[in-house]
Amino acid sequence: MRVGEFELIDKIRRRVKNSDELRLGIGDDCSSIAVPLDHELVTSTDLLLEGVHFRLDWTDLFSLGMKSIAVNISDLAAMGARPLSVHLAVGLPLNFSDQQVDQFLDGIFAGLDRYNVVLAGGDTCKSSDHLVISITVQGLCHKDRLIKRDGAKVGNDLWVSGTLGDSGLALRFLQQKQGLTEFLDQRHHRPEARIELGSSLGGLSLATAMLDLSDGIDGDLRHLLKASEVGARIELERLPLSHEFRTELQKDAALFELVLCGGEDYELLFTAEPDKRSRIESLSADMNISLQRIGEIIAEPALHYCEATGLNYQLQSGAFDHFSSTRDRSCE
Amino acid sequence: MRVGEFELIDKIRRRVKNSDELRLGIGDDCSSIAVPLDHELVTSTDLLLEGVHFRLDWTDLFSLGMKSIAVNISDLAAMGARPLSVHLAVGLPLNFSDQQVDQFLDGIFAGLDRYNVVLAGGDTCKSSDHLVISITVQGLCHKDRLIKRDGAKVGNDLWVSGTLGDSGLALRFLQQKQGLTEFLDQRHHRPEARIELGSSLGGLSLATAMLDLSDGIDGDLRHLLKASEVGARIELERLPLSHEFRTELQKDAALFELVLCGGEDYELLFTAEPDKRSRIESLSADMNISLQRIGEIIAEPALHYCEATGLNYQLQSGAFDHFSSTRDRSCE
Repeated sequence: MRVGEFELIDKIRRRVKNSDELRLGIGDDCSSIAVPLDHELVTSTDLLLEGVHFRLDWTDLFSLGMKSIAVNISDLAAMGARPLSVHLAVGLPLNFSDQQVDQFLDGIFAGLDRYNVVLAGGDTCKSSDHLVISITVQGLCHKDRLIKRDGAKVGNDLWVSGTLGDSGLALRFLQQKQGLTEFLDQRHHRPEARIELGSSLGGLSLATAMLDLSDGIDGDLRHLLKASEVGARIELERLPLSHEFRTELQKDAALFELVLCGGEDYELLFTAEPDKRSRIESLSADMNISLQRIGEIIAEPALHYCEATGLNYQLQSGAFDHFSSTRDRSCE
Repeated sequence: MRVGEFELIDKIRRRVKNSDELRLGIGDDCSSIAVPLDHELVTSTDLLLEGVHFRLDWTDLFSLGMKSIAVNISDLAAMGARPLSVHLAVGLPLNFSDQQVDQFLDGIFAGLDRYNVVLAGGDTCKSSDHLVISITVQGLCHKDRLIKRDGAKVGNDLWVSGTLGDSGLALRFLQQKQGLTEFLDQRHHRPEARIELGSSLGGLSLATAMLDLSDGIDGDLRHLLKASEVGARIELERLPLSHEFRTELQKDAALFELVLCGGEDYELLFTAEPDKRSRIESLSADMNISLQRIGEIIAEPALHYCEATGLNYQLQSGAFDHFSSTRDRSCE
């Protein structure tokens, strides 16, 4: 890598856009944000490590840059917040070429543009071996419109956006050295953060609790249930699956576990009062985003998976864990 | 490492304190902050990589945890802001023992307590080899009290807190496999962020521009000069040196470069109107922090080092660069 730290920062600065709320951006010790009246500032941080969260032989650097932004913005979507700014800290491997740095930055800026966020600051250094990416996103939300995890009530419907398991299926194929269709490649390497949906669900007060699915329903939903001190019953035949996933499932029924534990769906899982069903269905049609009612919140603090037969389904594997996941094991 | 991700997060959550402004902390998709009227929210991110920024054979994990917090909080000090919250993202090596994780976390929490900040969120994962630490700090500042880098005016005095070069000298000794005195060990491994000083300089409107010295005056001051579109003349004999540094300097005059380029001083460098001298000296006495006037801001956009002889001093090495610094080279 020929460019030095300050040249790289200058290179990045030249591409940075402005924002009304961002009073101070790259170039000072800190960025500074003026938060509008009655709004709160929401923040989330993610760390993405080569060999743990991604492999450079499985993804191109442009997609990796875009995905790094999207998966962080997804946390803002899960609060119903409007994304505002990103701080990017990156450790670039010594053997990276200037072209590789550019490809990664092009992906980062494509992600920033997609979600209309500004790069407000960050940190760059070399890394002795692996690529290290740390992204902090900040967004704004009216203080009364924030959708937390602790608002689910007994009798609420449980909803999910999009389809589940596609990203997990793509990962399985990559592990087995199988090629990916365009659809699965997009679902795994170019996930979309459901930011407009999250913001609408918050703005219209339709959701009582919400999170984004990064580790799979089985792991993530348990956090929401614990926070809300409730349980849930999920009707398995209602879980939304893509045509491609269904086709593979017919060949291997065991793939179903990926729907519950595959991880990296980045879909929104939310709860809502039953009297909001028609408004949610209208929103789904208006936004052209599939929203599926998959179960309900119950008082018993447990998570039941109900089959069409009326029996309870038992998961074979455990919940996704970033310390010992199938994803991690595949990268060692 | 025996504990899983969720156990580790639970372990961390049990130690977390509250804050009035932090409306939502660990446990949701994002944290949320209510910013007081007429205040702005300031943010800074740092990435600390094992083998680049620190070596585990040179530091204990408790000190590393404390230092990780302090060097980030130092960026808030440089704005005159009050620290509020920290987001911690950490990639823990697979071979770390539970005891090592605890030592590091003890240091993190000691740092949080020292600066009265709350852990508002973060991300944990395993790292295939090296320890990776990314910290994002957030603070609050009255919108009219923020001290930026672009406010230096021709004729302003240039001031610096504490003493310079001690941390660089400690690093030099570590590279040469020499032991450290308690003083140098503290200066290198347990730096203090000058948060009360920064906040007073802002609150009393004493400083016109400010930054914290992380890369050495020669590198950092140039950013301030560029932002303010001015130059500076520094009187070298005015640069504040510790007794220990002076003693070593008498043995080896070449060590003087560490005063200008050693890095990691985490002292505050600021400019002020000459009519503020007595108030700054009073503040220095009140806070028991040495504040030294080291030069002045000039119109010519250059940085001059003036010796007592009246001649200009020429640096032999260049400015500190996180991509190719002596510090970095020492870690390869």
